[in-house]
Amino acid sequence: MGPGPINAHPRVLRAMSADLLGQFDPEMTGYMNQVMALYRPIFGTQNRWTMLVDGTARAGIEAALVSLVAPGEVVLVVNFGRFGLLLAEILQRIGAVIETVDAPWGEVVPLDRIEAAIARVRPRLVATIHGDTSTTMAQPLEGLGDLCRAVGALSYVDATATIGGMELACDRWGVDVVTGGLQKCLGGPSGSAPITISDRAAEHIGRRRHVERGIRGEGMVDGQGPRIGSNYFDLAMIMDYWSEKRLNHHTEATSMLYAARECARIALGEGLAARYARHAAAGRAMTAGLRAMGLTVFGDDAHRMTNVTAVHIPAGVDGEAVRTAMRAMFEIEIGTAFGPLQGKVWRLGAMGYNAMRHKVLLTLAALEACLRMQGFALPLGEAVPAAIAAWGPEQVQEARP
Amino acid sequence: MGPGPINAHPRVLRAMSADLLGQFDPEMTGYMNQVMALYRPIFGTQNRWTMLVDGTARAGIEAALVSLVAPGEVVLVVNFGRFGLLLAEILQRIGAVIETVDAPWGEVVPLDRIEAAIARVRPRLVATIHGDTSTTMAQPLEGLGDLCRAVGALSYVDATATIGGMELACDRWGVDVVTGGLQKCLGGPSGSAPITISDRAAEHIGRRRHVERGIRGEGMVDGQGPRIGSNYFDLAMIMDYWSEKRLNHHTEATSMLYAARECARIALGEGLAARYARHAAAGRAMTAGLRAMGLTVFGDDAHRMTNVTAVHIPAGVDGEAVRTAMRAMFEIEIGTAFGPLQGKVWRLGAMGYNAMRHKVLLTLAALEACLRMQGFALPLGEAVPAAIAAWGPEQVQEARP
Repeated sequence: MGPGPINAHPRVLRAMSADLLGQFDPEMTGYMNQVMALYRPIFGTQNRWTMLVDGTARAGIEAALVSLVAPGEVVLVVNFGRFGLLLAEILQRIGAVIETVDAPWGEVVPLDRIEAAIARVRPRLVATIHGDTSTTMAQPLEGLGDLCRAVGALSYVDATATIGGMELACDRWGVDVVTGGLQKCLGGPSGSAPITISDRAAEHIGRRRHVERGIRGEGMVDGQGPRIGSNYFDLAMIMDYWSEKRLNHHTEATSMLYAARECARIALGEGLAARYARHAAAGRAMTAGLRAMGLTVFGDDAHRMTNVTAVHIPAGVDGEAVRTAMRAMFEIEIGTAFGPLQGKVWRLGAMGYNAMRHKVLLTLAALEACLRMQGFALPLGEAVPAAIAAWGPEQVQEARP
Repeated sequence: MGPGPINAHPRVLRAMSADLLGQFDPEMTGYMNQVMALYRPIFGTQNRWTMLVDGTARAGIEAALVSLVAPGEVVLVVNFGRFGLLLAEILQRIGAVIETVDAPWGEVVPLDRIEAAIARVRPRLVATIHGDTSTTMAQPLEGLGDLCRAVGALSYVDATATIGGMELACDRWGVDVVTGGLQKCLGGPSGSAPITISDRAAEHIGRRRHVERGIRGEGMVDGQGPRIGSNYFDLAMIMDYWSEKRLNHHTEATSMLYAARECARIALGEGLAARYARHAAAGRAMTAGLRAMGLTVFGDDAHRMTNVTAVHIPAGVDGEAVRTAMRAMFEIEIGTAFGPLQGKVWRLGAMGYNAMRHKVLLTLAALEACLRMQGFALPLGEAVPAAIAAWGPEQVQEARP
């Protein structure tokens, strides 16, 4: 019950035990096409280029940034936590000129401050995070695309921690490239990064296309733009691989593709609206339960992610001892924190297959017991009923078969 | 029965259906430590830094090169096929100064030519491929390390297509960084890249260490060398993650780690010498069977990889029609080819769980039938007995339970 990776859905685990296929076997390329179709509704998009990057969520981020940004280009990072810092760190290595508009940890950046920053720095790309698990905040993205397109800027959003758990509306937001991961609300393992790319971003990236000499055929034409700084993360080549051309790049990670496909089938089978409501109920219940214990929840209530909740470690309590007891006595993992929050908060997730009422209640009951055994005085027996009440009428568990 | 990806061992498929663990759970970090120990004998090394890069084999290659080489540094690529060209292509994007010493497709580069090239270009790194599936040639590497160390150069070898099937002797060869993949002779899925790094290479990479701001703690010191051009492929950070520091980088791809661990356990359970002998028998049998059909095997007999065999498509035969018939009638995939060999040869693999006598025999029998149905006149009934005779006394199949 940490901020991810979390327990995978049993159907996803089973999907990975199917035997492999050759990478150009029609059955395999058929599954690739299915994956493209399955992830469009999950991203809230009609984008043709909706596919997988073979690596963890961080690989998806780097693929997006290195393919979109050439050295010397100005990028505005909307930063409100560790993962905003990560965007800046990756962009530094790419050689971008980085400007940031920042919020303190526990808050988000208001749209008018983003607008002012765009007007000031005239970026080629605006990059941000949807839900930053380091602070548990979800950045509002409604209207971001319009601000970017008004000045001819592209936009990128890392949705690793929200995909499959909070609504992604890429087309309505008007954002160009969005990436995710399986290991949070999609209930799969880390190691595959879904990505969607708008036509205008695909065109921009295509101008940087460069075909490998070892597979270059007649009539293959390179783009005129600066070559993309990475081969593995070259989205132009990855699009060629996922297109009808099937131009060989990496060898698609077959078992992870099966996992990604099953994650999406499960999510769409539940229905996205029901799934988001279930995550919201889990977040409400977790927050209510923690507060009923007398604990202080971290961060701005108005912009909290539904699937992860940070709570202050009470004065006099050894945070690591509680985490150890949770794991040793209850086999429940809760999260530690990074940077300025390290040692100050725990982070409790309720994502995907873990966003179920009984798991939230078990976690709260276990935490109450561990806090009491640590000698912390707290109201006993209040957390569970408060959480049940806060859950409300939403579906309480995910289908398991 | 192509040049990989191939069918996975059933135990590997089952290993991936185990539930996930938190990335800093002691059980999970215990498995990471086991993986480090399991891959040392497979690489033929005592290197402390023996671990996984989360991505396909190509990710391992890029991680090695971008971490070893800074822009402007001279790299000598020993090139004898598509994957040598790939090394050069990745190095171009890094901004290296690339020199090559080349052999025609179907041959390897003699050591004295490598020696002369090293003396001429004084490289910072010598990079090559062990087995290049595009040409089916295996480059001899005995003595390469001494040549490099004599001039203070580092060395890198891509062993994707040989790891687990032909002997890797990193320490005896004296090479510094070697990478692989699971999807060929290790009998696993694509998506995890085993890597080993010598102490001197680790020290070199450590001088380029840069800790992310979002996780930077007290007393963490950056190196003074040029920053590594990629975050995801920064081996200094990946080593910190796999060390006792457990400094967070990506989220380890748990299911793929289970797969990599099981691949290694199976290989060591069989015994590496027996496993290499089984692959050699499979290669002998495949070659003998193809020749008994009257076909011409491609490339230099003295340096053939044991686990993949290229054979000329006979004049008048439609190579793609035969491949299609093999798949449609027999559910057997054989490989096409790249670059100068495209349309000229088929590539038949016998790797890992496919390097079994019955699979080689079934493939030969099926190919004979498909060639005959295409109207190609060939001696009938000769291939299978020739292959059985060529197999010899080696173990004929891999343990399945």
